Amino acid sequence: MSHNLSDRALPFPLARIGIIGGGQLGRMMVRKATQLGFAAIVLDPTPNSPAGQVAGHQIVGDFFDPAKLRELAELSNVTTFDIETIDSHALEELLDEGFSILPSPHLLATIQNKLSQKQLLADQGIATGKFVELEEPTPAALAEFGYPLVQKAQRGGYDGRGVEIFHDDSEPERILPVPSLLEEYIDCELELAVMVARGLDGATRVYPVVEMVFDLEANILDKLVAPARITPEQAQAAQDLAVKTIEAIDGVGVFGVELFLAKDGRLLVNEIAPRTHNSGHYTIEACVTDQFEQQIRAITGLPLGSTEQLKPAVMINLLGAAGSSGRTIVEGLDDALAIDGVAVHIYGKAESRPLRKMGHVTVIDDTIEAASAKAEQVRELLKIRGERAL
Amino acid sequence: MSHNLSDRALPFPLARIGIIGGGQLGRMMVRKATQLGFAAIVLDPTPNSPAGQVAGHQIVGDFFDPAKLRELAELSNVTTFDIETIDSHALEELLDEGFSILPSPHLLATIQNKLSQKQLLADQGIATGKFVELEEPTPAALAEFGYPLVQKAQRGGYDGRGVEIFHDDSEPERILPVPSLLEEYIDCELELAVMVARGLDGATRVYPVVEMVFDLEANILDKLVAPARITPEQAQAAQDLAVKTIEAIDGVGVFGVELFLAKDGRLLVNEIAPRTHNSGHYTIEACVTDQFEQQIRAITGLPLGSTEQLKPAVMINLLGAAGSSGRTIVEGLDDALAIDGVAVHIYGKAESRPLRKMGHVTVIDDTIEAASAKAEQVRELLKIRGERAL
Repeated sequence: MSHNLSDRALPFPLARIGIIGGGQLGRMMVRKATQLGFAAIVLDPTPNSPAGQVAGHQIVGDFFDPAKLRELAELSNVTTFDIETIDSHALEELLDEGFSILPSPHLLATIQNKLSQKQLLADQGIATGKFVELEEPTPAALAEFGYPLVQKAQRGGYDGRGVEIFHDDSEPERILPVPSLLEEYIDCELELAVMVARGLDGATRVYPVVEMVFDLEANILDKLVAPARITPEQAQAAQDLAVKTIEAIDGVGVFGVELFLAKDGRLLVNEIAPRTHNSGHYTIEACVTDQFEQQIRAITGLPLGSTEQLKPAVMINLLGAAGSSGRTIVEGLDDALAIDGVAVHIYGKAESRPLRKMGHVTVIDDTIEAASAKAEQVRELLKIRGERAL
Repeated sequence: MSHNLSDRALPFPLARIGIIGGGQLGRMMVRKATQLGFAAIVLDPTPNSPAGQVAGHQIVGDFFDPAKLRELAELSNVTTFDIETIDSHALEELLDEGFSILPSPHLLATIQNKLSQKQLLADQGIATGKFVELEEPTPAALAEFGYPLVQKAQRGGYDGRGVEIFHDDSEPERILPVPSLLEEYIDCELELAVMVARGLDGATRVYPVVEMVFDLEANILDKLVAPARITPEQAQAAQDLAVKTIEAIDGVGVFGVELFLAKDGRLLVNEIAPRTHNSGHYTIEACVTDQFEQQIRAITGLPLGSTEQLKPAVMINLLGAAGSSGRTIVEGLDDALAIDGVAVHIYGKAESRPLRKMGHVTVIDDTIEAASAKAEQVRELLKIRGERAL
């Protein structure tokens, strides 16, 4: 059922792309897959998932069900993913049997575990903060590493979960009782991210450096500013480090490289996402080729596209409002769209929950300041909540 | 099942949008509908139509089947179309019953007939070429009108079909034996088009004037150049005329206004398309808000978006190659995508036929000249054909 993607003459659909994960990233990827003439098949446990709605073909199944992963791979010419929490060993077995799975399941397995990810980076000589495996989650072990520090669960952390920051030994009850690592706490000037696309042939394309502004209380992304407000030299250094990182780990596909610009001037890799990334959403409106098309191109062996940014952009996530859940209600779309340059993405999730990613907004304008001011207006105008008060 | 689209708080999906016609225009419209949180339902006679593939819900039925049109309207909060060849009387009946159908079926009925379309324009004082109804399709009637002239079938013309140009009386056998009109042959400097969006509240947004370059032999669009290579005064006059036209006919939705810039300096309306249009495809990559999102906004009562163009653009259609038909084969996608700024749209049509619109390519670049040179390269590299030689 497969045909060689490097053939010059391909029947429609040019290939079937399997996507593990039917969330918003998969949804946006499906749109670009179909635009280019590919068909998409989505695997997700939720029927009618955001990506399933637009793909026209979804397998309902769990990311840890080897039979479902196999079913997807067998239906697809190439299989990829929009999340990391997958049974990577099942994918490694499928790879060994000859199925095309990109990015590599071996790399996914390494990145899934934040300790082995960090070790891979260190082994490849990539600049990161100091870290150690936390063998016993005890106050003594933290004290030995030295404060301030960050404890990270090796697995399953996401959007601030599985991460604890300790400035001293006064709150030992916060120590996570799970396999974890300790990292040097980096006093940051800025948190940056760089999306890197790398093709099957090793060619890379790098997007502009973006600035991730965090809500420090909720430990979630407050807004994303593209390009980052840094010097050209800093931007070049960040792009170089990001490309070097993805080359060092031999990644194929689109990767989000999260960086710290420390107050002491160091530029350090924090984490890698082996997939399209929230910090690359702005590329849909602001760049010549967006991250989702780039992912489709990379995994199908097509040449990568231009990453040129056409306008400054600011992106905010639309999170499910606190204090409500249930059927998704959208308020204020009309007021938000009355502002020029505002692009709204609603993800098609039937149920809202507090802090759940329900959509995002990208604003493009002639300056970062103008885009940012509009994004703050939209934040006040456009709300997504659940039908029921909690 | 309907809810008021002007409500501030809307449950997901915010509304169900019915689209009569499952072709490429519907396909691109569906993508924007789902991005904004709407659901889309497509009516098309071909199962798994281009739009149906991405909508997730298609009614298989004919555009002249009143029962199928009713079924679509009943499932939808608002119904629109991506083609003109529809039973507009059935739509008028549904409108009378209170269904929301936009643009207006009355306007559609008027525009469907090229004679009544022209009469409407003339009645509203819109500049057009001289025309008369052709009561008898005879050489004498043509001679009486005066050469050179254009004979147009009142109904069913499309992409050059149903149109004959006569410079003299030497080929009377070409006279179309159907109800038709005669128009003054305009000696054109340029053929232009302007997309106009108009909201339920009467607000308008106008896109840059574009230049339609025709292949005079095949009488099909060769390429589209955006913006048109005309003076700022000419561009302003063309935009003003296009907006005045859509206001005069009280259109709601997105309209393509085709204009002649005559060698004698006159600017004349040729025809109106009451829908998104081939000459607006470039807006996907080149403008802040594209024509498809604009259509969704207009018919759902949302504010219209910015029509600002970010980069010069050139668009070419990908037509099914002559001499072949059957299962769609795409050749040279890799070579085409190796050129920066090239965006490829494959429409998902299972069967290719000679001159069938199978896809399109938009190239954006810093200058029209650069974009145009790349478009010509792509034309040589990227081919769509049928599997069988004819």
